[in-house]
Amino acid sequence: MNDQHITIHAPATVANMVCGFDVLGFAVHEPYDVMDIRFSDRPGITIINKDDYCLPTDPEKNVAGAALLAMLEEIKEPLGFELGICKQIKPGSGVGSSAASAAGAVVAANRLLNDRFPKQDLVRFAMNGEKVASGVKHADNIAPCIYGGVTLIRSIHPLDIVPLQAPPLYVTIVHPQIEVRTADARGILKQQVQLKDAIRQWGNIAGLVAGLLKSDYDLIGRSLEDVLIEPVRSILIPGFDTIKQESKEAGALGGGISGSGPSIFMLSKDETTARTVEQQMQQTYQRLGLDHHTYVTTINNEGVKFTS
Amino acid sequence: MNDQHITIHAPATVANMVCGFDVLGFAVHEPYDVMDIRFSDRPGITIINKDDYCLPTDPEKNVAGAALLAMLEEIKEPLGFELGICKQIKPGSGVGSSAASAAGAVVAANRLLNDRFPKQDLVRFAMNGEKVASGVKHADNIAPCIYGGVTLIRSIHPLDIVPLQAPPLYVTIVHPQIEVRTADARGILKQQVQLKDAIRQWGNIAGLVAGLLKSDYDLIGRSLEDVLIEPVRSILIPGFDTIKQESKEAGALGGGISGSGPSIFMLSKDETTARTVEQQMQQTYQRLGLDHHTYVTTINNEGVKFTS
Repeated sequence: MNDQHITIHAPATVANMVCGFDVLGFAVHEPYDVMDIRFSDRPGITIINKDDYCLPTDPEKNVAGAALLAMLEEIKEPLGFELGICKQIKPGSGVGSSAASAAGAVVAANRLLNDRFPKQDLVRFAMNGEKVASGVKHADNIAPCIYGGVTLIRSIHPLDIVPLQAPPLYVTIVHPQIEVRTADARGILKQQVQLKDAIRQWGNIAGLVAGLLKSDYDLIGRSLEDVLIEPVRSILIPGFDTIKQESKEAGALGGGISGSGPSIFMLSKDETTARTVEQQMQQTYQRLGLDHHTYVTTINNEGVKFTS
Repeated sequence: MNDQHITIHAPATVANMVCGFDVLGFAVHEPYDVMDIRFSDRPGITIINKDDYCLPTDPEKNVAGAALLAMLEEIKEPLGFELGICKQIKPGSGVGSSAASAAGAVVAANRLLNDRFPKQDLVRFAMNGEKVASGVKHADNIAPCIYGGVTLIRSIHPLDIVPLQAPPLYVTIVHPQIEVRTADARGILKQQVQLKDAIRQWGNIAGLVAGLLKSDYDLIGRSLEDVLIEPVRSILIPGFDTIKQESKEAGALGGGISGSGPSIFMLSKDETTARTVEQQMQQTYQRLGLDHHTYVTTINNEGVKFTS
């Protein structure tokens, strides 16, 4: 048994990137969870909470535990891991809190195993954590958390992940302290959509991917339009329309609901704009009397980061 | 009045590029229409047919005429053009015959006017020709004909055209000699689609755009999947499923219905594969006893070409 000890930062991620519902997500530098892992003499997964969120420590009910169990199942050796989790990404905030735990755990464990598994396998393991968190094995937070940058999940079955290089982008995130359950946000979506709206949506995602790969900020901005999901879901988020309009007037390229909310994100070309957007978000929620938290950060091209 | 005389080749184009229904199209080198234009002493548009298709010579009923009339309306000068058209792209074949006439006419006329209008304006004028041909002002044949290469029409209102660089691609086209009216092909589409299918479609178009811009042939191949339009429209085209399956078995990256059919196109990485695909297409239609015509060509990055 080696006594190696790995510490990582597992970053927040923004899924459902506007027109890229269910398929496009990106990682940011802040906030992030801090996790540490070592081999344990006791086979299986031991979870030690180092924060105040009181998340389950039963591995089958813990997103990080479920991800590690999926990994262990494939290893077929009686290994044990002891995992410490200090969450700084608030659960339920819509910026991939569960994905950070699940992705961080398997990336850290894989390092203990001398990087035995390629990234795609790690995504597959970590998706079991998402299943525990929301009932759905989605990958649009997990994949950018593990690969870094902006990530396309072209397909889930079979899993097909395409990292997309992007030009430098500043990200302003506001998390209004209300609860939007992922299951609820999913439940209000219409299962049938107009073909003409779907066409507009795939014109936009094609434009967004082209804009990212060509570093064409104007094209990115023009393509950041969601005619299908946002009009339905944004009603769950007080102040959404005001924040979006004021952010764009302040020079943001665009943005939308982060994940299934309630956080809202906006992309900007430069830090000054991103900070102005932050101030306006703060003013809007002060006016509405809603507790909130903001971040100004950048796209994180590294994903999970090893700190020791 | 200058006596300049412009001759051009206006290429065939493939619209509705698989998952890029209504938004992605590309130009090919063959077939193409030959057109010549000069100023005329008589104001307005004079059309001279130089082929056997007996298309209308009344400019308002002729796709090239309608495109030029839209241009003249914006010029607000009493100009006259004499336009000769020798069509080699069979009308109704599904490879942008009307678009070639409309786009070729305005590109040629614009050269007489010392390139007064930018390409986007030319697309706008030429779309009036598509209106005459099919009742719909679509741009997914016009734009690649004028810009060349693979073209994304992110939006029609406002018009937003994004040229996408692509790696070298061979194109095999088969035109079975049956008639599929654009209006019929449009009529059988469902106006409502399942959200889950739309998500799969926009995952694929995002993958296709990324594959083209990254010159990733495997990703292009994996993304050439249309779960919404092709399953409905392909029933109008005898032999479609066989041709698609055999083409992929022969090594083609993928393909689908060209425009609204009846032509079928397949993309390949190399000429040998493209020629094998052609032979199999020919065998299929011989077996079915259907007259047909095939082309093996490449993506045309130039669009309308000036020959004098």
